[in-house]
Amino acid sequence: MTQQKTRTLNLRIPGPTPVPDDILAAVGRPMVNHRGKEFAGIVQRTTDRLKDFFLTSQEVMILSASGTGGLEAAVVNTLSPGDSVLAVSIGSFGERFATIAETYGAEVKPLSYEWGQAANADDVRAALKEDAKIKAVLVTHNETSTGVTNPLAEIASAVREFDKLILVDAVSSLGAIPMEMDSWGLDCVVTGSQKGWMVPPGLAFASLSERGWNAYEQSKMPRFYFDLGKHRDSQAKGQTPFTPAMSIFFGLDIALDRMAAEGLESIFTRHKKIGAFTRAGVQRLGLELLCQDERFASDTVTAVKCPEGIEVSAIRNAMEDDYNIILAGGQGKLSGKIFRIGHLGLVQEEDISSTLEALGETLGKLGFKP
Amino acid sequence: MTQQKTRTLNLRIPGPTPVPDDILAAVGRPMVNHRGKEFAGIVQRTTDRLKDFFLTSQEVMILSASGTGGLEAAVVNTLSPGDSVLAVSIGSFGERFATIAETYGAEVKPLSYEWGQAANADDVRAALKEDAKIKAVLVTHNETSTGVTNPLAEIASAVREFDKLILVDAVSSLGAIPMEMDSWGLDCVVTGSQKGWMVPPGLAFASLSERGWNAYEQSKMPRFYFDLGKHRDSQAKGQTPFTPAMSIFFGLDIALDRMAAEGLESIFTRHKKIGAFTRAGVQRLGLELLCQDERFASDTVTAVKCPEGIEVSAIRNAMEDDYNIILAGGQGKLSGKIFRIGHLGLVQEEDISSTLEALGETLGKLGFKP
Repeated sequence: MTQQKTRTLNLRIPGPTPVPDDILAAVGRPMVNHRGKEFAGIVQRTTDRLKDFFLTSQEVMILSASGTGGLEAAVVNTLSPGDSVLAVSIGSFGERFATIAETYGAEVKPLSYEWGQAANADDVRAALKEDAKIKAVLVTHNETSTGVTNPLAEIASAVREFDKLILVDAVSSLGAIPMEMDSWGLDCVVTGSQKGWMVPPGLAFASLSERGWNAYEQSKMPRFYFDLGKHRDSQAKGQTPFTPAMSIFFGLDIALDRMAAEGLESIFTRHKKIGAFTRAGVQRLGLELLCQDERFASDTVTAVKCPEGIEVSAIRNAMEDDYNIILAGGQGKLSGKIFRIGHLGLVQEEDISSTLEALGETLGKLGFKP
Repeated sequence: MTQQKTRTLNLRIPGPTPVPDDILAAVGRPMVNHRGKEFAGIVQRTTDRLKDFFLTSQEVMILSASGTGGLEAAVVNTLSPGDSVLAVSIGSFGERFATIAETYGAEVKPLSYEWGQAANADDVRAALKEDAKIKAVLVTHNETSTGVTNPLAEIASAVREFDKLILVDAVSSLGAIPMEMDSWGLDCVVTGSQKGWMVPPGLAFASLSERGWNAYEQSKMPRFYFDLGKHRDSQAKGQTPFTPAMSIFFGLDIALDRMAAEGLESIFTRHKKIGAFTRAGVQRLGLELLCQDERFASDTVTAVKCPEGIEVSAIRNAMEDDYNIILAGGQGKLSGKIFRIGHLGLVQEEDISSTLEALGETLGKLGFKP
C-alpha cells in the first residue's frame, strides 16, 4: 500500500507555502453539494473578500487551475489573434506570459531585461510611443524566478498615458506586498492560491477592470474553461461554471479570515521586514544576491548566487537531509546558478533565522569560505 | 469569523461523491515541494496506476482542472480550426463537448438525440459514410444529465471502420463502469477526480492513443495550460508542467490503492448491482425513469421524472431538510422536470435503500399517489 509521510517540512520555496493547520483541516473537509446553499455562501464570501486584497471594486473570479491557468485567462479574455502586445520580461514567468500570448496568436514585442534586473517605466513609455499598434502590456509584478519586484505602479502610470491595457501577473505578490488594482489602473490582475494566501495550489484568482471587460467583449481569442464572463455570471448566483476544486475553496475561506484578522498593512509590513531580514542575513553569510538593487528586491522570494565551486544541488540536498529545510533551485537559464529562499504567506522571522543558520552551517561543511 | 459545518451529508449527486475518511485525511496533508522526490513518487504512482483503469498502455496525464478542462484538452490537442467533427449528443454534457469544439473553430456536425435516449452506432456509421470530411467523433460515454450510458464499444467499432478519431467524455463512467480504451480503439479519453474515484474535484485525467498523439502533432488549435504534450514530458520526470493541485493528488494516491484493492471487476459489479437496485426501487415507488430502455440505463446516475403537480425543488429541499440527503436536479432543458440520484464511487446498497425510503416518505408528504 501507498505510504505517505506526514512530517511537516520547512518549505522555504516560493510556493506552495506551508499551510496553517486550521486551513489544512478545512481543506480535508467532507464534500458538500457544489450547487447547494452552503457552497454558494463560500463562493460569495471568498470572491467578495478577495476584492479587499486586490483593492478593486470589480468582481474577482476564482478559477480551478494553477496561476499559469490564470495567466492564460488574462490573455484569452482580453486579446484577439493578431493583436500586438508589449511583453515586459525580467525572468522565467515573464517569458511564460509572452509565450502564452504568442501561442494564442498575439504578435509579441518583447521588452526583456537581464535576469536579476527590474523593468523600467521609461522603457515601457518609449516602447508605447514608438509603436502605436501595441494594444496591451504584459508585466510580471514579482518575478518568482529572480526575486525581483517590478515598479508596477510606475509602469502602470506609464501605460495609462496611452490607451492601452495592462495585464499583470501578480501570482507571487498579491496578498503579500502592496498591489492596488483600481488606483494603479491595472486592467487584469492574476494570482494563485499557493502563494501569499497560505492555501494549497489549485485555484487562480483573476479580476478585470472596466476597460478589461470592454476588451473582453471585443476579444476573439478562443476560450471556454477560462472564460471569465462565464465565471462572473455563475458567481453572481453563488456558483462556478464548472465543478470547482472545492477543497481549496474550503481552505481559502479560512485563510481569508486569517488574513483579514491580520490586516493588509500588517501583512505588508511583515513581508517587508522579512524580505530585508533575509537579504541582510544572506549577505552576512558572504553570499551575493542576484538582485543587486535593493529598491527592486522582492519581499516574497530571495534569489542567491551559488558560490563558485559549490553545486546548488549539494546545498539543497544537505539543507533537506540535515535540517528538513527545502530551498528552491534556479529556473531556466538560472538553473544550477542560483538557489531561492521563499518568504511569503505563513512566515515569521524565526523561520528565516533558522534557515540562515542552517545555510551557514551547510556552506561551511561544503567548504565555502566567504 | 467564518463558520463551516462539518456534518457529513448523504451526497446522492453524480459528483462530487462522498470521500472516504482516509482519502480526506490525505487531502488535508501538509504541503511538500511539488518539484521534490516525494511528490515525484506520487505523480509516478498515480499516473501509472490510472493506466490500469483506463485499460491503456498509453500515458495518462493529470491536469489540475475540472472534467470540463479535460474535455477542452481533448479538443485542442487533436484538432485544428476548420476541422469537421461529428458531435454525438444525448444531453447537456454532449452539448458542452460540441460547444467547446465550436469555440475553438471546429465545424460541428451535430448528431443529437432526445434527452433520455442513447446514441446509435448505425447512425454514427451512416453519418461518417455520408460526410468524408469528418475528422473526429465526439461522444459522451455516460451522460450525467440524463442517466444514459451510450453503447460506446459499438460506437467506437463503427468509428474504427473509418480513419477517424474518437474522443470520449468518460467523466462519469471511468472507474465505475466498463470502459476499455485500447481494446475499444478510443483515441482520447477524459475523466474527472470527483466521480468514480471518490476524490474531491480539481483534477482531470486524459489519455491519447497513438493515433491521438499523431493528431496532436498535426493539431493547430492553440493550447498552453491544457497542452497534453507538456504534461506527458513533465510526467516523465515525475513533475507537472505547472504547479498542480497537490492536495487532490494526495487523495488520489490513496484512492487508487483502495480501488486496486477492491479490483476493477468488483467495482463494476458493485455499480451494476446498485444501478439496477436504484432503478427497481424508483419504479417500485411508482416513479418513472427518464431512460426507458434498461439496456442504456446508467449504473452511475439515475434520472427520475418528477411526478405531475410536485415541484422538483420541493422534493430536493425536503430530502435535504428532513433526511440530510442531497439529490441533484435537472440540467438545461430538463431543469424542473427531473431529479437525479447519483450512485457512483463510495456507494453501497444501504445508501440507496435509505435514500429510497426517504424519497418514498417525502413523496407521501408531498401528496404523491402512485
